Amino acid sequence: MKYNKVTPEIVEELRRIVGDRNVIYDDSEALEAYSHDEVAEKEYAHMPDVVVKPTSTEQISEIMKLANRYMIPVTPRGAGSGLSGGAVPACGGMVLSVEKMNRILEIDTKNLMAVVEPGVVTNEINNAIKDYGLFYAGYPMSVETCYIGGNVAENAGGGKAIKYGVTSRYIMGLEIVTPEGDIINLGGKRVKDVTGYDLLHLMVGSEGTLGIFTKIIVKLQPMPVAKADLLVLFNSVKEAIDIVPIIMTNGKIIPTSIEFMDELSFKTSCEYLNEHLPYQNAKAMLLIELDGDSMDIIESQYETIGELCMKNSAIEVYVADNATTIERVWRIRRNIAEAWKLVSPHQSLEDVVVPVSEIPAFMEKLEQLQKKYNVSIPCYGHAGDGNLHATAVKNPDWTLEEWYDTLHKLLPEMYEIVGKLGGTISGEHGIGHKRKDYMYLVLGDKEIELMKKIKKAFDPNMILNPGKLFNVE
Amino acid sequence: MKYNKVTPEIVEELRRIVGDRNVIYDDSEALEAYSHDEVAEKEYAHMPDVVVKPTSTEQISEIMKLANRYMIPVTPRGAGSGLSGGAVPACGGMVLSVEKMNRILEIDTKNLMAVVEPGVVTNEINNAIKDYGLFYAGYPMSVETCYIGGNVAENAGGGKAIKYGVTSRYIMGLEIVTPEGDIINLGGKRVKDVTGYDLLHLMVGSEGTLGIFTKIIVKLQPMPVAKADLLVLFNSVKEAIDIVPIIMTNGKIIPTSIEFMDELSFKTSCEYLNEHLPYQNAKAMLLIELDGDSMDIIESQYETIGELCMKNSAIEVYVADNATTIERVWRIRRNIAEAWKLVSPHQSLEDVVVPVSEIPAFMEKLEQLQKKYNVSIPCYGHAGDGNLHATAVKNPDWTLEEWYDTLHKLLPEMYEIVGKLGGTISGEHGIGHKRKDYMYLVLGDKEIELMKKIKKAFDPNMILNPGKLFNVE
Repeated sequence: MKYNKVTPEIVEELRRIVGDRNVIYDDSEALEAYSHDEVAEKEYAHMPDVVVKPTSTEQISEIMKLANRYMIPVTPRGAGSGLSGGAVPACGGMVLSVEKMNRILEIDTKNLMAVVEPGVVTNEINNAIKDYGLFYAGYPMSVETCYIGGNVAENAGGGKAIKYGVTSRYIMGLEIVTPEGDIINLGGKRVKDVTGYDLLHLMVGSEGTLGIFTKIIVKLQPMPVAKADLLVLFNSVKEAIDIVPIIMTNGKIIPTSIEFMDELSFKTSCEYLNEHLPYQNAKAMLLIELDGDSMDIIESQYETIGELCMKNSAIEVYVADNATTIERVWRIRRNIAEAWKLVSPHQSLEDVVVPVSEIPAFMEKLEQLQKKYNVSIPCYGHAGDGNLHATAVKNPDWTLEEWYDTLHKLLPEMYEIVGKLGGTISGEHGIGHKRKDYMYLVLGDKEIELMKKIKKAFDPNMILNPGKLFNVE
Repeated sequence: MKYNKVTPEIVEELRRIVGDRNVIYDDSEALEAYSHDEVAEKEYAHMPDVVVKPTSTEQISEIMKLANRYMIPVTPRGAGSGLSGGAVPACGGMVLSVEKMNRILEIDTKNLMAVVEPGVVTNEINNAIKDYGLFYAGYPMSVETCYIGGNVAENAGGGKAIKYGVTSRYIMGLEIVTPEGDIINLGGKRVKDVTGYDLLHLMVGSEGTLGIFTKIIVKLQPMPVAKADLLVLFNSVKEAIDIVPIIMTNGKIIPTSIEFMDELSFKTSCEYLNEHLPYQNAKAMLLIELDGDSMDIIESQYETIGELCMKNSAIEVYVADNATTIERVWRIRRNIAEAWKLVSPHQSLEDVVVPVSEIPAFMEKLEQLQKKYNVSIPCYGHAGDGNLHATAVKNPDWTLEEWYDTLHKLLPEMYEIVGKLGGTISGEHGIGHKRKDYMYLVLGDKEIELMKKIKKAFDPNMILNPGKLFNVE
């Protein structure tokens, strides 16, 4: 597949479509901001030739038609907060930023849905609907910076998936510009729809390779009014994980979150925060969040869970039932990555998945990996859905070369481990640029071949976000 | 596309693969049972040449390879309880029945999942897991007869979608034989997975046209322990529907079901059942079900809903909070179809969808349709998700010819109405054989073209369930 360079003539045509002020060209400082996402390592970055910031569906349609005519790669971009290089123009060409399409178009309280543009910051949806007593439940951890368009592209997960599911559950309709520039509509304001293949949810998680979302209909629901958190300390990873199904079966409770932190994670974070919880003897922590319609229910639930935890060998249970204490326990979880950045800014944040019951087995293998490669891999994440942020951190004694060399051996080995445990290499960050060479570790040739055929069916010239999921052939 | 007839030589090969007793051939009485599903009208029936009943994934793989070699159409079949002709061998050839693949292979209480074969009756899953305090929430109204394989193929809905969603939410993994006979695995025991395109959920609702499911991993959850129903009478459809979002926003309650019945539906059913509720003045009924973890919560919820209904012009609210009274109110809803069969067995059961807020507008249009065609169209269904079983019933005075003639004009007109209201022609029964000529009324050419490309990508010889969704070209 051969792409063409962006010429000054093509830039002129782009300026005609979106207006002068919405094109960045020949300005390497301004272009650089569009060359990477939040992946720490710069080896995954790539400079675009040009950045366009369309303001309408019709402009995007024109841009895609032009790109097909000249065979220019187009990489759609949301907030750039992704963690797999999905918004990086891996083959150069054009970055299509949706940052100017950031309007909340409709809040429909009769059908409990909102219609938004892709460049809306996800949390803005919640700000706009909270006065109606509603909330959008599909939000990821980066809710205050990410765009809803990126959430749809990556099928973003987050800490609340155990109760609320992930983004796909809340996407009811999409207006899309196809790679060839056609404008299509999938789904709508309807809760059920089995009219033909479910293209709508095929688009969710397609990482900007099958189409560009221009309008998004999301489902809203009543906002829970009460909330509490439990911080539970355990002597071992196994004891911590064993409690997860017990809460749901014996306790008959589906918590909002069950977050897991291993010793490396919480100790580093607590030290960083100067937090004086008596955590010294613990080998694992769970942070369990509950939400619901009344504080009475929540109280009865956290009592049940507390008892179950103590009966099943927890060291200690702390309850946080007001804003101050809730913030105190969550900041331990939220500051793990920051705390480890002091050790080294060179890190590889993973989001592997295993069946919940296999978390202890995975943690054992992870310990072996750490010893084998002489590297720290703090591990934390969403225990309730087996989605773990194992994060290899550069050994401060190493040169960068030694680090990359190690990482390129360590990552496939970690991916192979999750594959053998019945898991997969990405639960919420996506394959993108970073993990495309490793899909074969968890998917068969036939599955990958079917995915490639689907890509080709949507994008015959292979110009939309090339170099993601698959290599350019 | 030209298919070949099933010859005695091919039948011999099939006997070799699945064994003599698992092939039906040259026995029109036995074959007839496989020529139709639950669609009332026999115009959608078609006789198969041969029926095979494989007992393993490997046998299905061999059968598909053989069918590709000889260009024989293969129609997969579950319980035959479908309502769109999906399991009917529209192009003749082979019916592949999964009735002998009916084992529950695993109940995994650690990961809250079960692994089942496609021929398991859906309710059998619930029977097998209830002692663990678990339930499978994806079940449709026909739960006691349908197979889980058919549920996945049709993405079955049902009355509980408003709270629990539809089948797709609960499908975590599939083993599939592709139309070319390859065995592939999608998903697994993992709650999150963004490794490549979501082929898993593309298969859900693909109506047996993209692959044959041979193992299904379903998600389980804690069984609610308390339940109650409200039967609420209203003076108008509009007043009944207006209450739906009010329950969720003002009441902050997501009921398990909000079932709607129009006057034609509940009066005929009540008369049939000799039910003496004082329903005479009502123009619409809602049947609202609640479930949860304690009767205290349920009581407080039904009191809230009862008050909201009375404040918003309900005529009367009846509470059913024990098995006997719950059965009494639900049998009104369940017997509508039976009651109308006494008027005429010739009916067209539809499952159109509109945005919830558009139900009153749809009901007005439906009244106009009834007058225009001089036909009764009782309408009931799942108000909480706008999924309505508008059921045209043959006028007893008409000849069958007059009936079919009317139906072929009336249906597209009804479908056009839902399309204009932002709805679609099927919410849970599927397109199948019955509605394939009408998809264009709610989908654009480009959307249908993309679906055809996907079909071709999976099934290059177009031998798996041909004549469904699209016409054979």
